[in-house]
Amino acid sequence: MLKVIAQDFIKPEFVDAVTPLHKELVEKTRQEERCVSYDLFIDQKDSGHFVFIEEWPDRAALDAHCATEHFARLVPLINKHQRKDGTYILMDSFTA
Amino acid sequence: MLKVIAQDFIKPEFVDAVTPLHKELVEKTRQEERCVSYDLFIDQKDSGHFVFIEEWPDRAALDAHCATEHFARLVPLINKHQRKDGTYILMDSFTA
Repeated sequence: MLKVIAQDFIKPEFVDAVTPLHKELVEKTRQEERCVSYDLFIDQKDSGHFVFIEEWPDRAALDAHCATEHFARLVPLINKHQRKDGTYILMDSFTA
Repeated sequence: MLKVIAQDFIKPEFVDAVTPLHKELVEKTRQEERCVSYDLFIDQKDSGHFVFIEEWPDRAALDAHCATEHFARLVPLINKHQRKDGTYILMDSFTA
């Protein structure tokens, strides 16, 4: 199991413009055969700070996601409106 | 619904020492009546970077969590070993 947090930072004046892009990205990604979960959240203190929480069975599934038509088309359109570079963290489950 | 990402940064030499503290914090928190989910992950690139992904029905449930005996006791013990301050983000679901 691979957990991912990906964060986008969008200029305030473009938040409305990226909404349909985010919506399509979420919808299309959830249809991917190997997507376990793909949820998008908005920072309560910053309406341009978008946080994707994702779960994939393995790295190959994430790589396949990043190679899809919808990812390759939508992410650059979203990133045109970013105010700083996005970040991502790849994580394993804690087991003690 | 309230989603939370809380991040801890632990000194490498104390990762083993905080493991039982994290384990107890996860176990006790999941027993809280109003906890929807409370999962802990570790950054694949940094074994001292711990990421809690939490879900609560509302802010009152999160505030109650922060006032529990286990939170008040365990978090300061964990933080004694941090290499920098932790961070947290409170988020709403994206709905387009």
